[in-house]
Amino acid sequence: MSEIYQPTSRLLRLDVPERAATEGASLRELERELERTPVGPDFLDITYADTHRFPPDSWVLDEFVKAASGAGMTYTPYRGDPGVRRAVAEHVSAFLGEQLDPDGEIILTPGTQAGLYTALSAIIEPGDTVVLPDPDYITSERSVRYLGADVHPVPLLWPEGESPCLDLDALAAGLRQEPKLVMLSHPNNPTGAVFDPSHVAEIAALVADSSALLLVDQLYSRLVYDGKPFAHMISEAGMRSRTITTLGPSKTESLSGYRIGMAVAPPEIIDRMEDVMSVAALRCPAYAQHILTRWLDDDTDYVAKRIGEYQSLRDVSVAALSEIPGVDVRPAGGSAYLFPGFPGIDATDQEVAIALKRDAGLVVNPGYQFGPRGRKHFRICFAQDEQAWDAALKRMTDVLHSLPRA
Amino acid sequence: MSEIYQPTSRLLRLDVPERAATEGASLRELERELERTPVGPDFLDITYADTHRFPPDSWVLDEFVKAASGAGMTYTPYRGDPGVRRAVAEHVSAFLGEQLDPDGEIILTPGTQAGLYTALSAIIEPGDTVVLPDPDYITSERSVRYLGADVHPVPLLWPEGESPCLDLDALAAGLRQEPKLVMLSHPNNPTGAVFDPSHVAEIAALVADSSALLLVDQLYSRLVYDGKPFAHMISEAGMRSRTITTLGPSKTESLSGYRIGMAVAPPEIIDRMEDVMSVAALRCPAYAQHILTRWLDDDTDYVAKRIGEYQSLRDVSVAALSEIPGVDVRPAGGSAYLFPGFPGIDATDQEVAIALKRDAGLVVNPGYQFGPRGRKHFRICFAQDEQAWDAALKRMTDVLHSLPRA
Repeated sequence: MSEIYQPTSRLLRLDVPERAATEGASLRELERELERTPVGPDFLDITYADTHRFPPDSWVLDEFVKAASGAGMTYTPYRGDPGVRRAVAEHVSAFLGEQLDPDGEIILTPGTQAGLYTALSAIIEPGDTVVLPDPDYITSERSVRYLGADVHPVPLLWPEGESPCLDLDALAAGLRQEPKLVMLSHPNNPTGAVFDPSHVAEIAALVADSSALLLVDQLYSRLVYDGKPFAHMISEAGMRSRTITTLGPSKTESLSGYRIGMAVAPPEIIDRMEDVMSVAALRCPAYAQHILTRWLDDDTDYVAKRIGEYQSLRDVSVAALSEIPGVDVRPAGGSAYLFPGFPGIDATDQEVAIALKRDAGLVVNPGYQFGPRGRKHFRICFAQDEQAWDAALKRMTDVLHSLPRA
Repeated sequence: MSEIYQPTSRLLRLDVPERAATEGASLRELERELERTPVGPDFLDITYADTHRFPPDSWVLDEFVKAASGAGMTYTPYRGDPGVRRAVAEHVSAFLGEQLDPDGEIILTPGTQAGLYTALSAIIEPGDTVVLPDPDYITSERSVRYLGADVHPVPLLWPEGESPCLDLDALAAGLRQEPKLVMLSHPNNPTGAVFDPSHVAEIAALVADSSALLLVDQLYSRLVYDGKPFAHMISEAGMRSRTITTLGPSKTESLSGYRIGMAVAPPEIIDRMEDVMSVAALRCPAYAQHILTRWLDDDTDYVAKRIGEYQSLRDVSVAALSEIPGVDVRPAGGSAYLFPGFPGIDATDQEVAIALKRDAGLVVNPGYQFGPRGRKHFRICFAQDEQAWDAALKRMTDVLHSLPRA
């Protein structure tokens, strides 16, 4: 076989080969090493939420069953059922504070990841530059490289006791290179950073003054803590005509198992995203689309309760991690993640991830997955059953205590 | 906006720009013209099956509900839930007559289209050549061009009263160009051609003697009429190590609304298809994956009944179309499609498709969508409610009679 099949260059780029020099091995090799690591007792995968403890809202499955029992179209337009798009446009317009055209500015996608992939495929060419925070969502850098473009990183800064922000000088320097796109997750994945509205305005002002489009992944933008305000990039001056926003109910609303999401973008871009869909996956699963008609509308109490529960879990987690010498953690402003660093521990993030899996049964994401500045961190999802999480934090703390100090 | 956003070159290739010279306009322009055409009374979209008349098997929705109610994982491995893959491997092995490894040789995909896209992305590079029948499935040529490769067409021949076949001289000539891949749908979409087992062996022998891989879309391979045998490419000598087979329940089993499908391939290729999935759409919808555990196993009576019903619809359709002067139709050996040609009518396939939509309320696929040799044909899906179909055939016949003769 090996003489017949060779992985394509897009797949070799997906592995971000230039990172091998600094990581000591390719990302793929490191991740396979982690997969092969035997898992200790009391296994818990904390790379994602426990959707049994935090299930979908009560009406979700009924809505699916109705659609699958004859009420829903089987073959919708690739951009999604027109009636569903009308409902989604109404609720997303209220959420974003922008009046959206259901026919022109909305596309339903098979999950939010597919929304990102579809947007990137419609926008970036081989050889283009994409400005991207470091760290950012695990597949962002990989997707950009997969599609043949290069990343200009912008450090995400979060000094203790201050608000998180992008390094605006680095952003301005990146924009001077005439990138095709600025891409970011907000709230930031993996750190949970939520930018102050004034900082969102600063970022938007720089982008609006450039020739770049902006792709913002707002998957966690309903999941913001401490009653903080959240500013949508699309609503900043000059941004609507150049902003692509991806949203979806996979995380806060626990609907990842349905593969539904959506994107908001100018009509010219939605048209071309639909063209990408025509070859990549055809459409958001047709019956599941109907769940989106009640999303952002009939689930406000449900989400409010969830935010309260997650906020308690966040606080418990930050308190436990903060007590460990050599470990450094910021309280996430949004999302269900924490991204503790461990400057005082003499180990790489790969070694810490392996130790946590082998000795504590905890599967976490090592920080290198999120960008070069993610090194010496790991990401955990605290959306877990409270009792299991208490025990997991105890095991995590024990392992981190046991590692050699720097 | 227009100065900010420009469609990417992959999207310009998706439109197969070289076809504009022979079609008189780009495929995209032609298709938008057809979309804009007002639809006549008694609207019926016969580009796909009526899943209300032909609904899924009775256990399908229950299986989904069980998985979505707590029995199924929300975050499966990208290649699919291991337990589901074990069941799928068992049933697909029996179907294909090859013993498959559930961990190495199977990936679940969000629909069969995503299986094709994922395989193509893992295999072909910009500048590669792909050998493809003409006509073939609507997105095949487009996907190949989208990914930057070129198509070497092989005529599909089907003289009246004979068995359909590929032009083996053209196939051999294509293989001499050292293509990365031979790709085909079998049963053929749009014609419904099923090759005799001896011809499948001839195709396989040529491919096995080359350096090419083979991607065969067998979406319709359970839907074969007249009790004819169906030969699977993967089972031919020397083919298992170079064949990618896509399958799924979207058509015969009416499950397109769930977006589930799968591919069988050598482990090295499945590994890389999973890498593509990690950026493109993450996974086949997790709860819907569980439907596949009973597919090809608990639905044999259901499919047998369906084949009988579709065969009657096929026969009625062939009889009606055969009576129209200037129209030429072959009885599909498989699939739910017919691909009538109209050498004796003085009109293009675009004009016929527009007339059928405007004057008969019937949305059909004009033949150019399936390749240059598809011109002067149109594709219809006869999997329709019998009464509605009788009326539709009458309207179709009237319109075809009314057009000027060549």
